[in-house]
Amino acid sequence: MSRFDMEGAINFIREGDDFLIVSHVQPDGDAVSSLLAAALVVRSLGKRCTTAIADRVPPKLMFLPGSDLIRNARTEEPPGRLYSRVIAVDCADFSRMGMAANWIGDDARLLNIDHHPTNDGFGDVTLIRPEAAATAEILHELVTAMGVRWTKPLAECIYTGILTDTGGFRYTNATPASLRIASEMMEHGASGSRIAEHLLERVSLAHVILLKKALATLSFTEGNRIGWVTVTRSDMEEANAQSEDLEGLVNYPRNIEGVEVGILFKEVDENKVKVSLRSAGAVDVAAFAKSFGGGGHVRAAGITLHMPLQEAVETVVGGLRGLMA
Amino acid sequence: MSRFDMEGAINFIREGDDFLIVSHVQPDGDAVSSLLAAALVVRSLGKRCTTAIADRVPPKLMFLPGSDLIRNARTEEPPGRLYSRVIAVDCADFSRMGMAANWIGDDARLLNIDHHPTNDGFGDVTLIRPEAAATAEILHELVTAMGVRWTKPLAECIYTGILTDTGGFRYTNATPASLRIASEMMEHGASGSRIAEHLLERVSLAHVILLKKALATLSFTEGNRIGWVTVTRSDMEEANAQSEDLEGLVNYPRNIEGVEVGILFKEVDENKVKVSLRSAGAVDVAAFAKSFGGGGHVRAAGITLHMPLQEAVETVVGGLRGLMA
Repeated sequence: MSRFDMEGAINFIREGDDFLIVSHVQPDGDAVSSLLAAALVVRSLGKRCTTAIADRVPPKLMFLPGSDLIRNARTEEPPGRLYSRVIAVDCADFSRMGMAANWIGDDARLLNIDHHPTNDGFGDVTLIRPEAAATAEILHELVTAMGVRWTKPLAECIYTGILTDTGGFRYTNATPASLRIASEMMEHGASGSRIAEHLLERVSLAHVILLKKALATLSFTEGNRIGWVTVTRSDMEEANAQSEDLEGLVNYPRNIEGVEVGILFKEVDENKVKVSLRSAGAVDVAAFAKSFGGGGHVRAAGITLHMPLQEAVETVVGGLRGLMA
Repeated sequence: MSRFDMEGAINFIREGDDFLIVSHVQPDGDAVSSLLAAALVVRSLGKRCTTAIADRVPPKLMFLPGSDLIRNARTEEPPGRLYSRVIAVDCADFSRMGMAANWIGDDARLLNIDHHPTNDGFGDVTLIRPEAAATAEILHELVTAMGVRWTKPLAECIYTGILTDTGGFRYTNATPASLRIASEMMEHGASGSRIAEHLLERVSLAHVILLKKALATLSFTEGNRIGWVTVTRSDMEEANAQSEDLEGLVNYPRNIEGVEVGILFKEVDENKVKVSLRSAGAVDVAAFAKSFGGGGHVRAAGITLHMPLQEAVETVVGGLRGLMA
């Protein structure tokens, strides 16, 4: 069976009627956008569908058309009648959909649309393309292959998925195809500037207050090649911050000229610290994180340490100094 | 005479030999990139050319191929023999090239390549397209029309010009064509992630120190609809900062949820303050700036006030409160 079975995917959608479309827990822009794009495809054919994610949709994604209809499968009871035809988008394996799995019948057939190279191929039909920067790029291909008419909402979903998974076209995963599809989506009505404003420019007041507090702790070693900031529990309380308000903070030390590894230490409780590591490229932070039981990618990795904040800083910075000396 | 005379522009280049290529003072990414792209076009035809700008090239643009060859017409004496065939890129009028004009002979012929709607049409041949997000987009069209072979350096220049003038494809001036050309440039070897890293991600340590100091002054009024920060002369000294290190600071108050106008007050001396205003869209800051003798665009404007810092804050914030109440 091909991992990228476009004919099978089209037949799966054409033959079904009442679909459940799900994506992964802690949904990001690509998860929500790809789910909404799939729902627009299904509805454009006059078929019914329900969308569900086992988490709330982040507020900054609520501008997407149809986002208010996504059910929260973590807080809502499963429906009396479970679904027998399911489309999973942006889920590398079945367990990634979390409690949304409880909405799926035992005999259900499933279409798996995803771009993660690690996708384990679950489901009855798979549409997996690891070269795609975002699952939204695969949805673009599906829409084109099915001849579904482009609308502004559909174009905005595809644009959003690509924009968020490529960090505004800045990450190394952005390809010529990513930009070409984004251009096409603008021609179909997507407002690139409006979407970027919602998702990349606007930040919460809590985020800026945390930034101020974090920058006050900015420290360096190894001739500025290692830079870090810390955020304590009381910082979080004083800023009235949620964990999503921390997003992007680790990039501040990372982006300073000369810094090779930027680190954010976040105190979770007295004896627990979450460590985010970002590399400018020369240092493999995934390998480093692994030696502390963490994981991630070459340029972005994380560790959880069970010790006080100050000890965590000494442990991680000390380890990196040994590695980079 | 057409404002966009492609045939005339091609003849101008084909008929000449020894060119001077200039751009505007205080050069930005589009100015430097378009100048370098024009030089690559001329040199690909086996013709000689000299590149000059009446300022230094900002360090963050020095990764561009050929940037080290650009002469500084502000610090260097004009050559003994002045140039008789000149290409001006990204200059809305002749005076924008500053002291580079001293390198041009009295009888010189000039090709004017630009995208500013306000371009006054100076020169003998003009290639002006106000719809282009960047002058680099017009260079792309010139290269295509001339059949010049794409190379990686040429592709990187065009990509850089578009990226910088559209704020990483985020401003409202970015069109489907901007993204389509950027995609094409990646296919010709431009590394979007590398260029974004150089120009949009990396910041100086001085910038981050100024950011820390500026955020400590973050203030709001009108229910957070107006937000501002201030930077004093001693902040600049303590951070060991140049004026370019202030770049982007005004976006911090501007980007906070709910803020409609973000302001940066920069103390130049005891009785002089530079004010940068950024609007989220609802307030026309150009009109407001004009009432204080300043100017700019609807969403980005500036004012210079001859008064102490605290008085400048009261004057501008007070004026905006009156406007927005």
